Amino acid sequence: MTSSSRIAIDAMGGDEGLAVMLAGVARARRRFEGMEFLLVGDEDAIRAGLKSHPNLTAASEVVHAPETVEATERPSQAIRRARTTSMGIAIDLVKQGRAGAAVSSGNTGALMAMAKLSLRTMPGIERPALAALLPTLGANDLVMLDLGANTECDTRNLVQFAVMGAAYARTALDLDAPRVALLNIGTEDQKGTDKIRDAAAQLRAAPHLPLDFNGFIEGDRLSRGEVDVIVCDGFSGNIALKTAEGTARFVADLLKQAFRSSTRSKIGFLISRPATELLRDHLDPNNHNGAVFLGLNGLVVKSHGGANEIGVANACAVAAKMVRNDLTRRITEDLGNFEAEAA
Amino acid sequence: MTSSSRIAIDAMGGDEGLAVMLAGVARARRRFEGMEFLLVGDEDAIRAGLKSHPNLTAASEVVHAPETVEATERPSQAIRRARTTSMGIAIDLVKQGRAGAAVSSGNTGALMAMAKLSLRTMPGIERPALAALLPTLGANDLVMLDLGANTECDTRNLVQFAVMGAAYARTALDLDAPRVALLNIGTEDQKGTDKIRDAAAQLRAAPHLPLDFNGFIEGDRLSRGEVDVIVCDGFSGNIALKTAEGTARFVADLLKQAFRSSTRSKIGFLISRPATELLRDHLDPNNHNGAVFLGLNGLVVKSHGGANEIGVANACAVAAKMVRNDLTRRITEDLGNFEAEAA
Repeated sequence: MTSSSRIAIDAMGGDEGLAVMLAGVARARRRFEGMEFLLVGDEDAIRAGLKSHPNLTAASEVVHAPETVEATERPSQAIRRARTTSMGIAIDLVKQGRAGAAVSSGNTGALMAMAKLSLRTMPGIERPALAALLPTLGANDLVMLDLGANTECDTRNLVQFAVMGAAYARTALDLDAPRVALLNIGTEDQKGTDKIRDAAAQLRAAPHLPLDFNGFIEGDRLSRGEVDVIVCDGFSGNIALKTAEGTARFVADLLKQAFRSSTRSKIGFLISRPATELLRDHLDPNNHNGAVFLGLNGLVVKSHGGANEIGVANACAVAAKMVRNDLTRRITEDLGNFEAEAA
Repeated sequence: MTSSSRIAIDAMGGDEGLAVMLAGVARARRRFEGMEFLLVGDEDAIRAGLKSHPNLTAASEVVHAPETVEATERPSQAIRRARTTSMGIAIDLVKQGRAGAAVSSGNTGALMAMAKLSLRTMPGIERPALAALLPTLGANDLVMLDLGANTECDTRNLVQFAVMGAAYARTALDLDAPRVALLNIGTEDQKGTDKIRDAAAQLRAAPHLPLDFNGFIEGDRLSRGEVDVIVCDGFSGNIALKTAEGTARFVADLLKQAFRSSTRSKIGFLISRPATELLRDHLDPNNHNGAVFLGLNGLVVKSHGGANEIGVANACAVAAKMVRNDLTRRITEDLGNFEAEAA
């Protein structure tokens, strides 16, 4: 058994508790035959929880961690407890080569800080980025990065995010040459900041990368399925991601209000429930769970704090796919080719 | 008749043509008794169009303009034709004091450039900002600015936007002390860029402004009705606004697909149609039309290029309210008080 078929799980992170984490991992286990899991956390609690999951028990090993990172803990505080917390130990298993990836539903800032400190950025990469898959009207999900790891970015960061995001889309979405665009406030060449325009110029000048550079895209086209990867600084990315989440919830809430507005509407709602459930299903963040820190010497997946069993299983699936496709090597190669072309 | 009851209309701007502009203005005329309109554009075409609107004819004057700004025209090109285009002449009527505000559905960049050049920024204001009203789940719409007039902003710009946005909310939403927040990627004090944190510190240190400073707000809370004014740089604002528009359309499209997915859903849809129409109505941009350039020595309202008759009427209503409440004076006073407090 090599690390490429083993995933370390921070079993204690997340708002939903250990039982949901274990149920999610057990689900993922059934989808990925041959994958093994290192379950990190309170040994007694994990062993007790595993009694409901004989299938997972057979494919997992328990690694004891005496402490847990708190949801509200400051990253600067949490990194001091890297050796004793379930989050820190899960990441360390990746560093040691005992696992191909780590998955945690815990504190995002702490996870980022610990992962960066322990795994370090890949050669040539200044900053890791947080990438996620978002739903679209197209055939595929969309890869978007950075979603908040870097408040301010320069041209070089944006170009590296494009290369890393494309490598991730090749793995996660099975695409040969993902269509990549930079998020901007207009599609004309002269729009946006100098950094964005310069990043576009550099990406246009590197035609041999395994990606199809599509220039700029505006916020209203995010979910149209017109591109596969959208690149931006962490500030804009976080604003866009949260605005999209908030707006989807806003529209759903308005719809609920509207359906409640009359008896006739209530009846219509009951009849069309399969349709509205389809919608809910499509927008459910659990079905798109698993954000990835790209650019580190090792794979770390962030699962939503409030993810349910299905969400946790999806985050594990993201990790499993990346491990199987050797994403870190792929990014290293693509970046090497880009540097060679740019030189 | 003073300028405070007269609005200049760029009758030729917009994708929907003169007939829709006139129908929209005629509608606004019925809502604002005593308001007069200066209809700027091709005199013969306007006179012909007015035949269907005797009510508007009685309350308007036609001002001939031989040319029109094109939708795709570069702002740098358009400003050279300020004296001959319907857009340029409408703005000039404000400058001359013949109208209290100008309304155009034409080219946004050109409108901004012409308005800035002709009306100039208010004393002490470095940059004008584009503000709009957005729908929320609360009792009021939300004022958001800047929405794209300024790609990059410094601390002073953000603080001035907060003061101008609050003055606008007092007028447009009839609030005494609007709740103001800065858009950020977290609500904790240490989140975001230096500029945003410094702007927050300055706003907190000015407690006598007619606004209630609420700190930071994240993208997922935009439409919750928790604050009345959201302030950001033009890049983030444009990304957030367009992402919100795109996501609302995305959810509506998914819903349509879902309703079409089975006969049962189709029947449910037909029965609950009043509910879905309520939703469509709430999200229809025509019902929130009329973005305002704040910080100029005169009022200019941008109507959506694709606005229909109702949209145009709403943009005129925004102008009429601002004119009646003497918004420019109010902003001048608030800024003066802020400078005095900060000194």
